[in-house]
Order: sequence, then C-alpha cells, then structure tokens
Amino acid sequence: VAEAAQDPVQDHEFDRLTALSPTGPGEYAADLSSGWVVGGGVNGGYLLAVMGQALRHALPGKPDPLAVSAHYVSASAPGPATVSVDVRREGGSVATAAVEVAQEGVTRITALATCGDLGRFAERAPDVRTTAVEPAMPPPEDCIRTSDAPAEVRAFVAMLDRFDLRLDPAHAAWGAGEPGMEGVVGGWFRWADGREPDVLSLLTVCDVLPPVTFDLGMPGWAPTLELTVHVRARPAPGWLKVRHATRNLASGLFEEDCEIWDSAGRLVAQSRQLALVPRPPLATDGG
Amino acid sequence: VAEAAQDPVQDHEFDRLTALSPTGPGEYAADLSSGWVVGGGVNGGYLLAVMGQALRHALPGKPDPLAVSAHYVSASAPGPATVSVDVRREGGSVATAAVEVAQEGVTRITALATCGDLGRFAERAPDVRTTAVEPAMPPPEDCIRTSDAPAEVRAFVAMLDRFDLRLDPAHAAWGAGEPGMEGVVGGWFRWADGREPDVLSLLTVCDVLPPVTFDLGMPGWAPTLELTVHVRARPAPGWLKVRHATRNLASGLFEEDCEIWDSAGRLVAQSRQLALVPRPPLATDGG
Repeated sequence: VAEAAQDPVQDHEFDRLTALSPTGPGEYAADLSSGWVVGGGVNGGYLLAVMGQALRHALPGKPDPLAVSAHYVSASAPGPATVSVDVRREGGSVATAAVEVAQEGVTRITALATCGDLGRFAERAPDVRTTAVEPAMPPPEDCIRTSDAPAEVRAFVAMLDRFDLRLDPAHAAWGAGEPGMEGVVGGWFRWADGREPDVLSLLTVCDVLPPVTFDLGMPGWAPTLELTVHVRARPAPGWLKVRHATRNLASGLFEEDCEIWDSAGRLVAQSRQLALVPRPPLATDGG
Repeated sequence: VAEAAQDPVQDHEFDRLTALSPTGPGEYAADLSSGWVVGGGVNGGYLLAVMGQALRHALPGKPDPLAVSAHYVSASAPGPATVSVDVRREGGSVATAAVEVAQEGVTRITALATCGDLGRFAERAPDVRTTAVEPAMPPPEDCIRTSDAPAEVRAFVAMLDRFDLRLDPAHAAWGAGEPGMEGVVGGWFRWADGREPDVLSLLTVCDVLPPVTFDLGMPGWAPTLELTVHVRARPAPGWLKVRHATRNLASGLFEEDCEIWDSAGRLVAQSRQLALVPRPPLATDGG
C-alpha cells in the first residue's frame, strides 16, 4: 500500500494541482492553484510539493527528498510559474540539487534538496531508534474541524478546502480569544478526497497548520524566512498527527519545529522554520 | 564588547584562517586551513564561517546570517578554494543569497543564506520569550579537556588545536568504551587564543563536537548531508555552552540538533543537521 501511495494510479487533487510539464532541460511549467491561497499568497508547503515533483522528474532513482531547505524570497500568486532544477551532485546513494520557483522572472522561493531512495535506505539499514515521544492528542472525532470555520475565514484561506484538518482543542483556544500561551499547535491531517499520504504530502503538511504565534496571543501572518524539512520515512496510510512548537521567540523572530507522525506511530518528518513574528496591525516597516 | 567582537581589531587566528580576497563580482579566493582538518576532510563548521565572511562582504548592512542551510556535496581539502555569492534578494530588513565553496571547479558545499542585522532586529523588537531550558553542565574545570586527548587523536583531528573544548563527562564515557546510549553530547567552547565569540563563530561551533552517534556506541565518521543554522542573537563574551542531541535514528540516517547558549544564559543559536550513521568498518557502499 505504501508503494502504491508513491505512484498513485487514481486521479487525486493533490497530484493534479502539483503537476508539471517539462519545457526544457531542468525546466518545468507549473500552474499554481488558486485553491492553495492563504491570505495574500500561495501556501509555502504546497510550493515545496511542486518543487518535489520537479526534483523527482530530474533525479530518476532518487524519488525521496531527504532534506529540503527553502528560503522564501517573495510572495507567490496563483497562476503560471516556472520551476527550475540545477543538479549539483549525482551518483552514490544521494543527489543534491538547487530548485527554484519563479513567476514572470521573479524568484518566489529558492531551495536546496538532497534526495535519495528511502526504500533502499530502509532495506540496507532497517534499524529504527526513536527516543522522541509521539504527542498525545484526542482522537480526530474529538478535535476541532477547520471545515467548521466561519465562511469569511474559509474565503480568506482557500487551502482549507484541500484537506481535513482537526485541531487539538488543547491548543486551539486562541479561536475563542484565549490563547494557551504555550507556543504549541497540533492536529490530525488527511487529504479531503481520501488520497493516502506520501512523501510529497509531508512537504506540504509541515506548513499548513496555523502559526504557533496564534497560541502566544499574536494573531496575524507570520512570514516564513526559511523552512527545512527532513523526510525520515514513507508514511503509512491513514491520518497524520502533526505538532508544531516554538521554544525561542526573540528580536521579532521565532523558530517553529514540526513533527509528523504516521498512523503506524512512526516519526516520518521533522521540520524547522525561522519566521517573522506578526507585526501589530499599524506598525510600519522601517527596513 | 559584543560590538567589538563583530569587528575584531586584534589579529586572531579564527579571523586570519577565514579571511578572503575579492577576485571579482561575488567571487572570493580562500585558503582552506590545514589547521581545520578532521580525519580526511576540512571541518564543515569552519567552511560555514568562511562562507559567512563572503556573505558579509557581499551584503553590506546585513552582517548576520540569520539562517544558513548548507548541503555538503564533496569533501574539502586544505588549500585554495573559490567562494561565490549570488544575491537573490536585497532590500528590506533581510537579504537572501546562494553561496558556494568550490575547489578546482568541484563544488564542496552549497548553501542558501538569509541575512540581516540582528542589532536592528533587537532594537525594533526587544521582546525575548525562551521556553527552552539551558542544559545543566558541570563547570568547565570539571569537564574533560579535548586538549588532553592522545597525540594520535590530535594528529587525526588537527582542529582540536584551534579551540578549548571541555566535554560534559555525563556524555563522554564513549571515550572509555562505555557509551551512555542517550544520543547526547555536550561541552563548553572558547577559542584557544582568547578571541571572544561572535556570530560567525557560532556557525563553526555548531559543528565541532564529536557526533552524537559516539554516545550511541557507533564510533566513526558521520557524514553530514545537510546542516541549517539559525543565529538568534550576538553572543556575550565568555564560554559558550553547546549541546547536541538526536531523537530519531532510522534507515541509516539521523538528525542532530544543536543549541548554543552564551555566558549571559541566552540561546544564541539553534542548528539541525541530517547525517549518515557511521557504517561498520568492513561494509561496502552498494549505492
């Protein structure tokens, strides 16, 4: 089943909206979906999956992005985009490539990726020693459905229609004006159309929850400067459990760590981003 | 004093060994020091500081690498190297650049960096909320001096002469063949010649301790695939406290998280790397 999830034979929305057409050596045409809009831009995790599709095409035999480091340069808009891949090292068990999304000649997001075949890695070294502890969370049916969000929120965050997200009520009281002040957000994730999770899904899932600053009483958009994802295993079918936390907010910047656990209880992805703390509504940028 | 550490007026070894000469637009000549050799290559943290010098020159007014994501492509050797910087975004409070070290036309390490001025960030947003807890460690005089390592180890790891490193005895029993099996390594760091720590030092310090796999009973070299550093504040003068830990070793790969705390008790840098588990001595690479 995990193998089938790598090569979906059915037509699923996530695959359709991240599809690319090769236009030249290492060059691909993409159409960034208006269905992935959040506020004024296109979701950064969705862009990572689009880049993952290009990497997969450019690096045959290395289907899994083991480490992707993305730096966000300018806000993306729905519509045509160019994805370019520049392979920097091939051969051996891993390959390294630079990958970039641009629109009308303007870079949106630039990244480096080291890719390999997680199936071969697991065959050669089946040892798993995880001391990280899977976070406790009420079952999905006892969590808060983002599909129940008010219509005006859903209009502003079109991507909410792409997935079924259930927020852990222990860290969602900011919705009622009572932030927990712990800097934690968590929830259950699955695709809205029943598609099973795969490696490319993980690149997206690590960036779709509300920012942890909501739980610190700081509403508003928290622009990502840098996001690195480590994909550690191909996920089992079923719900993904996602947890974000920050431990160091300082000088207007904060880190946000994310863990994704699959239905088999395995830690399948770890990510960390550096983001800007939301500014008070009337502040002006002197930079 | 912190300001002085940014622009050292005295001649210190770290500054001398990371110095560059501009050779063209965004191009610099470096001489990788044989004093930074560890085993068969040049230390990756030292390479980050060399890249940091190039970024600082290429991005005036943005002296601090807030986030650096490096992917290691091939092993570096002591001797001449070229460092190139390609600025991808300037203006506003941060800038983004690609930076690369090559030797004889072969890429050694390729990175993306987002840089800014931490002094201005701190002025504009002095709020600090750190829930991370500074690790407990015996004082430096009760820790294990790497300068006491046997001569054959010191010959193999020339970089040990560059700094004064005191390992936390709680996670150093692997030296006596009794690994703690916790996946933790920690210690105190300062430059051997008394130079105070600065932002570029932090890029190096996050990659000079022995790999956490030593504490898991896995001796040997653990090649870094990817390393991202977030520099969160300019360090105060004095000892740096460094702690590395892994929580997920699987499929022959492990992540290694590093925290650096300064003498004022501030979390000044956070890094994470993805590395290959050391292979048994007689294993052959089928990749």
